[in-house]
Amino acid sequence: MEEKIPYKTYLEESEMPKQWYNVRADMKNKPAPLLNPATHKPMTAEELSVVFCDELVKQELDNDNAYIDIPQEILDFYRMYRPSPLVRAYCLEKVLDTPAKIYYKFEGNNTSGSHKLNSAIAQAYYAKKQGLKGVTTETGAGQWGTALSMACAYLGLDCKVFMVKVSYEQKPFRREVMRTYGASVTPSPSETTEVGRKILAAHPGTTGSLGCAISEAVEVATHTEGYRYVLGSVLNQVLLHQSIIGLESKAAFEKLGVKPDIIIGCAGGGSNLGGLISPFMGQKLRGEADYRFIAVEPASCPSLTRGRYAYDFCDTGMVCPLAKMYTLGSGFIPSANHAGGLRYHGMSSTLSQLYDDKLMEAVSVEQTSVFEAAQQFARIEGILPAPESSHAIRVAIDEAMKCKQTGEEKTILFGLTGTGYFDMVAYQKFNDGVMTDYIPSDEELEKSFAGLPKID
Amino acid sequence: MEEKIPYKTYLEESEMPKQWYNVRADMKNKPAPLLNPATHKPMTAEELSVVFCDELVKQELDNDNAYIDIPQEILDFYRMYRPSPLVRAYCLEKVLDTPAKIYYKFEGNNTSGSHKLNSAIAQAYYAKKQGLKGVTTETGAGQWGTALSMACAYLGLDCKVFMVKVSYEQKPFRREVMRTYGASVTPSPSETTEVGRKILAAHPGTTGSLGCAISEAVEVATHTEGYRYVLGSVLNQVLLHQSIIGLESKAAFEKLGVKPDIIIGCAGGGSNLGGLISPFMGQKLRGEADYRFIAVEPASCPSLTRGRYAYDFCDTGMVCPLAKMYTLGSGFIPSANHAGGLRYHGMSSTLSQLYDDKLMEAVSVEQTSVFEAAQQFARIEGILPAPESSHAIRVAIDEAMKCKQTGEEKTILFGLTGTGYFDMVAYQKFNDGVMTDYIPSDEELEKSFAGLPKID
Repeated sequence: MEEKIPYKTYLEESEMPKQWYNVRADMKNKPAPLLNPATHKPMTAEELSVVFCDELVKQELDNDNAYIDIPQEILDFYRMYRPSPLVRAYCLEKVLDTPAKIYYKFEGNNTSGSHKLNSAIAQAYYAKKQGLKGVTTETGAGQWGTALSMACAYLGLDCKVFMVKVSYEQKPFRREVMRTYGASVTPSPSETTEVGRKILAAHPGTTGSLGCAISEAVEVATHTEGYRYVLGSVLNQVLLHQSIIGLESKAAFEKLGVKPDIIIGCAGGGSNLGGLISPFMGQKLRGEADYRFIAVEPASCPSLTRGRYAYDFCDTGMVCPLAKMYTLGSGFIPSANHAGGLRYHGMSSTLSQLYDDKLMEAVSVEQTSVFEAAQQFARIEGILPAPESSHAIRVAIDEAMKCKQTGEEKTILFGLTGTGYFDMVAYQKFNDGVMTDYIPSDEELEKSFAGLPKID
Repeated sequence: MEEKIPYKTYLEESEMPKQWYNVRADMKNKPAPLLNPATHKPMTAEELSVVFCDELVKQELDNDNAYIDIPQEILDFYRMYRPSPLVRAYCLEKVLDTPAKIYYKFEGNNTSGSHKLNSAIAQAYYAKKQGLKGVTTETGAGQWGTALSMACAYLGLDCKVFMVKVSYEQKPFRREVMRTYGASVTPSPSETTEVGRKILAAHPGTTGSLGCAISEAVEVATHTEGYRYVLGSVLNQVLLHQSIIGLESKAAFEKLGVKPDIIIGCAGGGSNLGGLISPFMGQKLRGEADYRFIAVEPASCPSLTRGRYAYDFCDTGMVCPLAKMYTLGSGFIPSANHAGGLRYHGMSSTLSQLYDDKLMEAVSVEQTSVFEAAQQFARIEGILPAPESSHAIRVAIDEAMKCKQTGEEKTILFGLTGTGYFDMVAYQKFNDGVMTDYIPSDEELEKSFAGLPKID
């Protein structure tokens, strides 16, 4: 058996999924609906269509259809960089000397450097199909902005990216990749929007946050003819598009005749984790198979493990709908010493509901232990992982080491969401031994929870 | 037919080549031997073994064996990131509206970002097998240094990299990747070597060159117990290891039932071009098939198109053997405005001989036109190419456009050697419209040729 499993399993193009899987269809307890921030009533399709493309609104609200056809144009684009490989980490297993079988689904082999492209092309496609001129978005670490720029360049759509100012300044190369793909990149908060000017007036010299950048991008989309706003995580539609990760993984495992026991993903807003686990979660929900799912989040931004399950604002400017989610409060600012993504204060409503229903576990890990895992993985498996992805690596290694103690031959799958080429400032801190950990105090979180909106 | 060709063709692991191909075995006119710089006599194996590992010396001098077994340990490593895909550029063809069929062999899907890893693991493996403690090398753009660091980390071998000072300062992230893989990186010229101190005394404030860095790395290797020197291009052994690129391409084409007409590669020292074309050139040399081979070099460093075919020094310190090659003279310093690699003054002896025998063509292209092709390719095919690779893209597009004029349905293969994630400073210049071209004058070249050694 062992010998038959290749290092990398690629599906044939003919075996690639032609439909996305919508896990909400199989959930008994559906994720809570988005609420209008003014009326606290569920957002209607009409209200949402001011912000999002019509087809994406449909997908956002669809709790019933389990499978949704992937349009041919998107399938064609997927074929440029997909299928992604399901990799057997033979070298890592050997060095860990574990009886566990470790697999990872590697989404980093495209220029955006991550899985974000899977949803970017879908969202850009529906915008194009609706006859729009362009889209707006925000980006923090920059993977989403890059992915969206690529998708828009391919489709000939204008792309306006609001990049958190601190990232804009610290990651000039990310910015240049987006510019190479023809996107305009504005540091946020900016003077170009009303909400940006307000934030700048209230907090002169601020280096911005994801919440600010979302508010600016939404304002531009809703005030510019022919534009809509797109978002790289958190939303139901994003999890739907990202289900391609899990569907390919599941098909590849079936081809190999292998069933994973534990499925591990890093969790910021939930785009990768939701996409990776969805089809497997569907089996669990339907009683066809059982799996352990583990969400891994940074100890510095622990929305699942220490957050409240409540309705909250998605952005700083409070222009977006309210979402029910595990949240640290929209006023929570992750410590500046934290590297990379996963810094969002909330979590996908779908994943929040699954977690609340105890269908999924969550753990939080500290930054230095994450980079130890990243370095170990890079040296053994030859891929320099993104800091975000390395959260999953950390826990995959931990689970494999537990197997070593117990002698269990568990099969572990984790999502290797992307590469770390644009995160070398963080790696340098680690290499120089000056990286530190930060865990918010209970008092800090309580203070932040106090800002949660009161919803009856 | 058209419909049957997938976007990406991956060989199965069982189909991957198990032997390297040595094109010298099929060459009627063998490449000229390396000469001892003192005696001008051909270097013996004994002399070479002071600098290189024994097994690599054997490979360097072997003009007879066409196939050389790839050791199992190297095959295992190859399986972590190979096979690389042979990609049909459907999207590019469509945008160019050409009847040409365009394919590229993509070597960028590994953390070193290029094909360099193919030879790095081989050279590190033989060093380890010989019981050595470590290896030394130089790196310019940084792809080779990164690749070697990865290979050494995997094998537990020490790795000392001399990085051209200007790159060390301008590419701190490249340096950090190497450090993450445990390599020590020294800016060159440095005070740590005799030759470095001499160069610094003669040229205070110099930002270094590849030729300097080679001299320093060779000095450390030959003066440190248990160390040898390794090189990422130019040498016969490197072309041998890189033949894996061409062998995989050829096997994939055979699987598809397709025969390329034109094969295009960028050429600096020749590692990628030699590897890509070797097995096809073998067929041509044996009279089994015909192909057009095109080497693409920068107009700013045009060793094949404007160089002399002569014995020359390989390094600035003149501690290395003399090689017969197309060269601009070892004193030639490529214009500082030139981005990325391909800046070496000479060319692989094997490729030089093939070119001199008119078995291969060469063209030179200017920097801005290369980046135009790079940007176009990035936007259409979704991969951000390395500046080096983009030279090949430029000419592939040019050839495809010729087909559009003539209506010929030629099949074009080019080598996409790597990704440009660490070259965003150059892309930024292009995006900002401040990139310029440079073509050395005849006088400049004549002056440089005057420094060629006199060999009877």
